[in-house]
Amino acid sequence: MPERLGPPLDAPLFERVALVGLGLIGSSIARAARHMNLARAIVAIDADERVVARVRELGIADEATTDAAAGVKDADLVILCVPVGVCGRVAEALRPGLKPGCIVSDVGSVKASVVAQVQPHLPEGVHFVPAHPVAGTEHSGPDAGFSTLFHNRWCILTPPEGTDEGAVERVRAFWTAMGSNVEIMTAQHHDLVLAITSHVPHLIAYNIVGTAADLETVTQGEVIKFSAGGFRDFTRIAASDPTMWRDVFLHNREAVLEMLGRLNEDIALLARAIRWGEGDKLFDLFTRTRAIRRGIISSGQETPEPDFGRRREDKA
Amino acid sequence: MPERLGPPLDAPLFERVALVGLGLIGSSIARAARHMNLARAIVAIDADERVVARVRELGIADEATTDAAAGVKDADLVILCVPVGVCGRVAEALRPGLKPGCIVSDVGSVKASVVAQVQPHLPEGVHFVPAHPVAGTEHSGPDAGFSTLFHNRWCILTPPEGTDEGAVERVRAFWTAMGSNVEIMTAQHHDLVLAITSHVPHLIAYNIVGTAADLETVTQGEVIKFSAGGFRDFTRIAASDPTMWRDVFLHNREAVLEMLGRLNEDIALLARAIRWGEGDKLFDLFTRTRAIRRGIISSGQETPEPDFGRRREDKA
Repeated sequence: MPERLGPPLDAPLFERVALVGLGLIGSSIARAARHMNLARAIVAIDADERVVARVRELGIADEATTDAAAGVKDADLVILCVPVGVCGRVAEALRPGLKPGCIVSDVGSVKASVVAQVQPHLPEGVHFVPAHPVAGTEHSGPDAGFSTLFHNRWCILTPPEGTDEGAVERVRAFWTAMGSNVEIMTAQHHDLVLAITSHVPHLIAYNIVGTAADLETVTQGEVIKFSAGGFRDFTRIAASDPTMWRDVFLHNREAVLEMLGRLNEDIALLARAIRWGEGDKLFDLFTRTRAIRRGIISSGQETPEPDFGRRREDKA
Repeated sequence: MPERLGPPLDAPLFERVALVGLGLIGSSIARAARHMNLARAIVAIDADERVVARVRELGIADEATTDAAAGVKDADLVILCVPVGVCGRVAEALRPGLKPGCIVSDVGSVKASVVAQVQPHLPEGVHFVPAHPVAGTEHSGPDAGFSTLFHNRWCILTPPEGTDEGAVERVRAFWTAMGSNVEIMTAQHHDLVLAITSHVPHLIAYNIVGTAADLETVTQGEVIKFSAGGFRDFTRIAASDPTMWRDVFLHNREAVLEMLGRLNEDIALLARAIRWGEGDKLFDLFTRTRAIRRGIISSGQETPEPDFGRRREDKA
């Protein structure tokens, strides 16, 4: 699975791309867009002055400012890379600077709520193409980003009905150039799919790590020492950005609670099988789940190295 | 975190080590023990003729046989590396071959049940030192093993009260030489600690992967495509050996059900916080769990690379 970007484009796709929020995702887009020559100029906008200063030090954008309305001026693509809970407020703040014909997009992990929050603030003649790159790491901030983050990952677009097709195609081309595979679906379906593939796994990981920390019979030192038995893998996603994830759960409430309800039904069956010694039921499930892992590996969403390749270099 | 074994010992710790069951763990012990010169001879015993043939091809043992009683003859260390559900039966089968003074150990992920199953079959003068190396990958079989599997991992010994101290020290030396850190605790405490750090995480991973496969609103193809959002990490441990894990749950029933009950209480609180929009409660938990991740990394049980280093080589 090569993780390299292709050669840069001969001519940029956009004149001026404004990125609002320079965390892991925003700063990765900045790096990838520059590397691939996707914009003649990249403007970094962040409400946090320290982030703006750091972006200047890193040199990953052509301009950097805390002023949203000024920053988006003349941009033909504006991407909101902020927690989904503040999308509406940010859209309102940058509205005065948006030029007619501009495309506004985002990278939020929830889509129906973002559409509801952002759309009312966009003037006539501005195109809204919501996007969600399904990629990330457990690290946050402008230093955590890297240009290959989106390579071989999916990016889901959820344009509301009636969105200008040319605008959708330009956003698609932008993500394709950064190495992503683009899929289009409704915001509602997106929120359901991501609830099970991303949101609920995060909630469960947060939960088990929290529960383990509270036990009175097992010390936290023991939990840490013996984490290699499986717990450790859960802690990676439970180390993800707290603000981002709080907003995801609050803004995809129905789908998350629905999926959680289903998991609870199924775990009750497993608990019953354990209590009554029904080994066959356990064995059948455990065999079935192995096949799904193989599907993920063969689809290129995972490497086949054992233990995530933690010991790859010197497997003896 | 170096993952290299040290130089081999000048003189072997044991004359003859018999390994019963040459899966991931047994075959890793064979490789590490030979690499470190821990035994003058290593005997591989497996009930499956194909495994015995494969062990011969791999050349990871000095002798290989399907005959348990003959294989353990003259061994001064016998290690059961079989699913915990068959420990008693295997101990019964090899009993006629055990020589006085021999040490019997195991590698089971559950300890109280193994003690209860194995001890009645051991003749007077044979020492029983149960062990659990907290290490593994999602792969199985003699080809999956490697000599550094136990390096920098914990191995827990749970000698029953009154066990010969010399025997305990020899088993400790064996694991220390393979790079493990050894800890001693009661079988009961072990089973509680591992329930939360290993058994319940596996059960939850199996459960979510199974539930996702059964959804009628989201296709399995979508689950696989968009797994990079978090789900993917769960599938690794849900790809572990079905027989081994079935036995773990059936033989650590009380602790697993107890820990599962606690998780359910805590997830109910989280679900309620989501339903009522209590963002602060979510944020507080998510902040706390980040700290635990840092503890695991600083204790050397994990590498700090983002996303398990999946893109380590060409992070740009």
